[in-house]
Amino acid sequence: MLTKADIQRLRALREKKHREAEGLFIVEGEKVVAELLAAGFPFAEIYATAAWSGARTHEVTDGELARISHFPTPSSVLAVGRIERAPLPAGALDHGLTLALDGVQDPGNVGTLLRVADWFALDRVVLSPDCADLFSQKVINASMGSFARVRVHTAELATALTGVRAPILGCDLTGEKVHTLTPLRDAVLVIGSEGRGLSPAVRAFVTYYVTIPRYGAAESLNAAVAAAIVCDNLRRVL
Amino acid sequence: MLTKADIQRLRALREKKHREAEGLFIVEGEKVVAELLAAGFPFAEIYATAAWSGARTHEVTDGELARISHFPTPSSVLAVGRIERAPLPAGALDHGLTLALDGVQDPGNVGTLLRVADWFALDRVVLSPDCADLFSQKVINASMGSFARVRVHTAELATALTGVRAPILGCDLTGEKVHTLTPLRDAVLVIGSEGRGLSPAVRAFVTYYVTIPRYGAAESLNAAVAAAIVCDNLRRVL
Repeated sequence: MLTKADIQRLRALREKKHREAEGLFIVEGEKVVAELLAAGFPFAEIYATAAWSGARTHEVTDGELARISHFPTPSSVLAVGRIERAPLPAGALDHGLTLALDGVQDPGNVGTLLRVADWFALDRVVLSPDCADLFSQKVINASMGSFARVRVHTAELATALTGVRAPILGCDLTGEKVHTLTPLRDAVLVIGSEGRGLSPAVRAFVTYYVTIPRYGAAESLNAAVAAAIVCDNLRRVL
Repeated sequence: MLTKADIQRLRALREKKHREAEGLFIVEGEKVVAELLAAGFPFAEIYATAAWSGARTHEVTDGELARISHFPTPSSVLAVGRIERAPLPAGALDHGLTLALDGVQDPGNVGTLLRVADWFALDRVVLSPDCADLFSQKVINASMGSFARVRVHTAELATALTGVRAPILGCDLTGEKVHTLTPLRDAVLVIGSEGRGLSPAVRAFVTYYVTIPRYGAAESLNAAVAAAIVCDNLRRVL
């Protein structure tokens, strides 16, 4: 039995400001909740109807779930997680492979990029503060469980990239062909926003540009597609 | 000055059944309309306010555009195109590179896949009838202008793949490594839906499976990401 206050509190978490104030976020849907549980994500609360076969902390009716759901057609489960943000340790970007997202605002793209980072076992993802909110359902859903496995930090990229000794790779149309990359155990790949590409502040840190050879006429590739192709080429020579 | 009938006709095109009945589709927004015009797409009608600097067939007021727009915040231009479907010529799939989408239902993915096909200069894309509607605004927007450049056919894949002599490639986790692909001038790459992968009817035609090496724990890659990595690997050895 949910109180009116419970319902209001859970519904309010659809807005970022309330998520930040409460330090909590929501994920809904059998598939994504099951994926995150399978990945060991420690949910604080799980509200589920009798139709949900997994663990729960609160059994609710279909009507109650419909009232707390952020969607017009609720599923059988709604889980609440704690927002935790690990600070980026000094010197971290000098070691291993980092994907840094510079103002990627489409939540589907951010989620897909987490999935790419997970597939290619990148050591971390750094989001600039103007990226889509990591704790929004669209990002988490698009990550298909990778949200729980990838180490993600939020940081001003101009600060995070200062003093980094590892090569910092950007993508453009006139760089070194990605097919002839030298092996890089440590590197930061920066990916810009769909609309405006890399910001000037981040461009200033790029140590070299790589190009995905183009055979046709598209002006650019989707951000997640470009990052994935670079990762495939980075990994194959390691 | 738009009549009430004009407004009703244009608004109705947000629904697929009306698009099919009229043989017309809509695109809205300065960026996408400009991209399609730049790619030479022959729009039947262009409704634009004084803020739109390009060509138009009908000048309308902001209020009129708001009434015909399919979006809550209209831009300065709404263009109407004719739905044209080129039949897939017999034997076409034996020549060149084809991307065949088997039930890819997310319109963003279909649009992104058109952009991938354009970037890698694939000869054609074949959509199964249960893919997202090619003439929906979400597909066209996500294609970033590639909609106007890529040759797209809609066909039952089991029919289209019958008798094809070119190799038919599918993606899975146990196929030949995509990094060691032999050069293929002619090939069909089939990509399945996000949820269920390739349908059994299409699997029956796959002549070999390729695998994108995985280093981490993600279960799968996004459909457009996977297609793009295979295309990059196909093109680099040609």
